Amino acid sequence: MQKQIESIIREAAKVMLSYDHPAITSKEGHANFVTEADKAVQDYLFNRLQQAFPKAAFMGEEEEEHRLGEGLTFIIDPIDGTTNYIRHRRNSMISVGAVENGSPVFGGLYNPYLDEFFFAEKGKGALCNGEAIHVSDEPFETALIQFGTAPYNVELAEATGRALPLILCNCGDIRRGGSSCVDQTEIAAGRAEGMFEFKLSPWDYCAASLVLTEAGGVNGNILGGPVVFDQPMPYMAATPRVFDKLQALLQQAWEGK
Amino acid sequence: MQKQIESIIREAAKVMLSYDHPAITSKEGHANFVTEADKAVQDYLFNRLQQAFPKAAFMGEEEEEHRLGEGLTFIIDPIDGTTNYIRHRRNSMISVGAVENGSPVFGGLYNPYLDEFFFAEKGKGALCNGEAIHVSDEPFETALIQFGTAPYNVELAEATGRALPLILCNCGDIRRGGSSCVDQTEIAAGRAEGMFEFKLSPWDYCAASLVLTEAGGVNGNILGGPVVFDQPMPYMAATPRVFDKLQALLQQAWEGK
Repeated sequence: MQKQIESIIREAAKVMLSYDHPAITSKEGHANFVTEADKAVQDYLFNRLQQAFPKAAFMGEEEEEHRLGEGLTFIIDPIDGTTNYIRHRRNSMISVGAVENGSPVFGGLYNPYLDEFFFAEKGKGALCNGEAIHVSDEPFETALIQFGTAPYNVELAEATGRALPLILCNCGDIRRGGSSCVDQTEIAAGRAEGMFEFKLSPWDYCAASLVLTEAGGVNGNILGGPVVFDQPMPYMAATPRVFDKLQALLQQAWEGK
Repeated sequence: MQKQIESIIREAAKVMLSYDHPAITSKEGHANFVTEADKAVQDYLFNRLQQAFPKAAFMGEEEEEHRLGEGLTFIIDPIDGTTNYIRHRRNSMISVGAVENGSPVFGGLYNPYLDEFFFAEKGKGALCNGEAIHVSDEPFETALIQFGTAPYNVELAEATGRALPLILCNCGDIRRGGSSCVDQTEIAAGRAEGMFEFKLSPWDYCAASLVLTEAGGVNGNILGGPVVFDQPMPYMAATPRVFDKLQALLQQAWEGK
């Protein structure tokens, strides 16, 4: 299974990298883009996965309708970090997650710029290029906390703005890379300790959340409660050592509205 | 000259990548680190450049004394983005700038993870892997603004915290990569529009500032005035189209203290 998923995603990355200046269309909201490459990669993944898993249902970012099927449902982000992709910033990932009975059962993600393939299957640990990975044990004072900005939504951008000084003055440093999948796999690989964004959709975290938890990480709703895969949510992920403190600072920032 | 500098820096990158878990020592201040690799890369660069330019003076981040010589002075950051380097985040650069009569005359920077070598010589344009590069013409509303956090200094971190919501709610999006050299070369290559940090030292911007200005970019003191190369300063760089607006927002954040 891992080899099959990896092979399909690596082929999809060739489609992704074949566009040098893809045609861009704006989606609803400020700074929210989709390109012809996102659509082409999604079509490629849907077709290949449908051949391999004929009974599966599909949910992808670039579709009109989003709902979970009853059995195995693939939740796909063809290019996570679309702005980076458009601007040639080489920090984007293809993400393929699979959910059954409401929770992820396996997931694969590929960063073609650094040639890193992450994979996790429920209960079997997380891998980066075939090697087992695990989250770090850094304390909050030296932790690297990554964030998403939700620039499509003024209210959420303002909450993010309030959160940044609170976090920056307590942690080691902050990072904003522009891909929630990269942010989560960095935590899984022990290269950062936390990430959050006040609104993320299931395709932004489905596959990565399993890699993260199988690597020993923790995730949840910023405002409390579990991760869900059938609607957007205020999402955060962290190492066990920093999760509670990060969540408390984010709730403080949210309540400051 | 370009070939000579490029060859020396590419060899230095082999020294940089030869350490998997370099010994780390803290410098003064919170979250300010140096590793044995920084020192080894600096020693390598000093030795090779001294052979090639026997009359030149040297200023490097990992030295005790910092002052400009009278003739050609090399200003070196052996590993810009040390935290990224320590954490295996693969977003760091070797930076070699050369100043004469108070301003840069040539500079080379190398990102070994993406194999990108940037070079500029005064009046001769800027190159990335041998190809001419130029800044973008994006308006502020869709601009990507990168920032440094100056986490070593609480007052500056607070000013940065005030600046972020102001900028985020006006520009396309923000980025925090963790290397001021990468941030500047991204602007030069047209992949972002601005960067700032309330305190940077000459080795953080010497080489990159020439690549930036030769690519059509503008730089200066956040609080007004020119770039200097003999002491730290509040540094910013941007495309001509976004510089004034970015500077105005940063001054507003600074005065909010």
